[in-house]
Amino acid sequence: MRNVITLTTDFGLKDYYVSAMKGVILGIAPDVRMIDISHDIPSQDIMAGSWILQNSAMLFPSGTVHNVVVDPGVGTDRNAVALKIEDQYFVGPDNGIFSLLTQERDYKAVRLTNEKYWRDNPSETFHGRDIFAPAAAHLSEGVPLEELGEPLDELVTYRWTVPIADKDGLEGMVIHIDKFGNLITNITASQIEDVIGDKSVKIYVGNTILDEIVSTFGAVPEGEPMAFIGSSGMLEIGINKGNAEEMLSVQKGAQISLILQKESQI
Amino acid sequence: MRNVITLTTDFGLKDYYVSAMKGVILGIAPDVRMIDISHDIPSQDIMAGSWILQNSAMLFPSGTVHNVVVDPGVGTDRNAVALKIEDQYFVGPDNGIFSLLTQERDYKAVRLTNEKYWRDNPSETFHGRDIFAPAAAHLSEGVPLEELGEPLDELVTYRWTVPIADKDGLEGMVIHIDKFGNLITNITASQIEDVIGDKSVKIYVGNTILDEIVSTFGAVPEGEPMAFIGSSGMLEIGINKGNAEEMLSVQKGAQISLILQKESQI
Amino acid sequence: MRNVITLTTDFGLKDYYVSAMKGVILGIAPDVRMIDISHDIPSQDIMAGSWILQNSAMLFPSGTVHNVVVDPGVGTDRNAVALKIEDQYFVGPDNGIFSLLTQERDYKAVRLTNEKYWRDNPSETFHGRDIFAPAAAHLSEGVPLEELGEPLDELVTYRWTVPIADKDGLEGMVIHIDKFGNLITNITASQIEDVIGDKSVKIYVGNTILDEIVSTFGAVPEGEPMAFIGSSGMLEIGINKGNAEEMLSVQKGAQISLILQKESQI
Repeated sequence: MRNVITLTTDFGLKDYYVSAMKGVILGIAPDVRMIDISHDIPSQDIMAGSWILQNSAMLFPSGTVHNVVVDPGVGTDRNAVALKIEDQYFVGPDNGIFSLLTQERDYKAVRLTNEKYWRDNPSETFHGRDIFAPAAAHLSEGVPLEELGEPLDELVTYRWTVPIADKDGLEGMVIHIDKFGNLITNITASQIEDVIGDKSVKIYVGNTILDEIVSTFGAVPEGEPMAFIGSSGMLEIGINKGNAEEMLSVQKGAQISLILQKESQI
Repeated sequence: MRNVITLTTDFGLKDYYVSAMKGVILGIAPDVRMIDISHDIPSQDIMAGSWILQNSAMLFPSGTVHNVVVDPGVGTDRNAVALKIEDQYFVGPDNGIFSLLTQERDYKAVRLTNEKYWRDNPSETFHGRDIFAPAAAHLSEGVPLEELGEPLDELVTYRWTVPIADKDGLEGMVIHIDKFGNLITNITASQIEDVIGDKSVKIYVGNTILDEIVSTFGAVPEGEPMAFIGSSGMLEIGINKGNAEEMLSVQKGAQISLILQKESQI
Repeated sequence: MRNVITLTTDFGLKDYYVSAMKGVILGIAPDVRMIDISHDIPSQDIMAGSWILQNSAMLFPSGTVHNVVVDPGVGTDRNAVALKIEDQYFVGPDNGIFSLLTQERDYKAVRLTNEKYWRDNPSETFHGRDIFAPAAAHLSEGVPLEELGEPLDELVTYRWTVPIADKDGLEGMVIHIDKFGNLITNITASQIEDVIGDKSVKIYVGNTILDEIVSTFGAVPEGEPMAFIGSSGMLEIGINKGNAEEMLSVQKGAQISLILQKESQI
């Protein structure tokens, strides 16, 4: 059964855009349960949407349909697509929003070209209501992926910048700052394992230097900064009961360096 | 079956107001599915609430009960009402919130005077929890509309200002600005059809002059302004991958003029 | 049956934290209905979360599981707990978040020490996803409270400052300001009944003096301030169709005094 549809958009909730999508979905799939993932993706920020999906979509039950509309290119020639990744379905614009999900997973995709599964007279500026919502609802009702349109071999793909590893250590960047002000970087736990291992390291971010990677907030006094592997498996900089973005004055895109320490420096 | 209740309020989510309504509804209608339409209606902005409803409520399945609480007059002598429009039910204050839905549709309304369907000892300042939520839940459980109270012939009604059409063209105003900064006007596609047809027109808004109405964002280069018929059927001014509110410095209430061009001017 | 899970967090919705919890819950309890209470609790504001719960949780149907994650102490030695209060279940950190609910109600609590009901390899910084969400889902599926861990006799408890009553009247403080700018105080209707009764009183807050406690907004002209018993049973200061926080320049924590008037002063 595919009886859960999730919604991820940058629409906010002060307009009718999300509720129109919900109405259309329930009109086609009256028994579906709809789960709001987020409607607070920053406007047109494809990678922010991709990041949320990467860290939550695959946790949902088998057959969940994820309806994703962060769509700065609506009304241009970008494709509208549906795809299957493992046992989950996704519907949205082909603009890179699925990049982080597909970078280590196989997928099967179609372009949403079968107008039978659109609303009549679709608006050219609101495919969320007229193309994506119906597609998600029909998938949820059991319509096969292949029915929705023509096969598409390759999706548009973006990547985070890859951290640079050399003999001095690792250099990465802040890719996301969360609601609590934690700085999330593009450096993964496994890269740290490979390049740093159990050697001594100093972490440089903004004007702050940290002496080690600790396991959790309780490892430092309240108000003190710390580096740790966050719940997404990436290196993060946070402050115990504080806000690192504000207290360290670091912004998205900032550089972060892990510099290996020579024996004599320790 | 009436097994969906939607919620539209200006309560925000930092207080207990929405969750109290949800608890009361589930206490009466334990199997209902609740759908959040929006809790981000600007405080006490009746027309903003009416606009969301107009553009989404009728898309929901037959028998849906829409619980609407934008209620600056709570605790005054305004009526509390329930109504049926086509196959949808609505519950809320009689303060104009249903104006845009009812302007072209018949309705049947009652005042919520039957205290049997209120919570005991209702608060005088929170009818959302104590009168509207129970009414919506009872409707959803199958209580007939007529049971909830006395018939009411006419609801309080507000209207957008109507655009002015004359030999020079059309003059309207910006009635809503969406999250992306698109300027939504009170000028409908059918008014443009009637007054302008396929004649040449210039569109004046703020300090900007546009030469035509295009069909979608892709019709102009990135960063350029454009006039188009939006997904609500109204004329909108937007910017391809940009924010018209910010870039054109235009606010809600601003005037917008469509001036017919004489042959010699073209 | 326990088929409703509510979610209350300070996570906001721009990150993956709420959606990851939802995915985990549905993975364990595929038929559960999830109800968002709020994800807009101010960051790490335990008493704000406790206030929402106090005013809504007990309204939900018997067997509802309330999953509450306002958790500034994640990764320290604070306990993770589940509890039963009357016919409702609660899961969250033992940091005072349940204080207002438990101050007048018995409860039965356990520490979430049974790792069988955690996700594998739980993150040390995201117990919401890895410990609380699974516990709530398992409770909802019928796992007995006692199964989740060792009994805990006493929870961490915070209290609002208690108002001071003496021969001159009552002195309290503003504990919460709602979205509409209403000032909610720690003075209850029953304290006013006991100390003031039907004697004359003046209410001092900021630079404003009010002459009586009225029953609702309609009792004063538009734009005028008023004191009233709000929907939570506490004394509130509001403005008819206005915002008391802004218009009276009063902040959370401000003092409010109810001074009994001598006969000769009236």
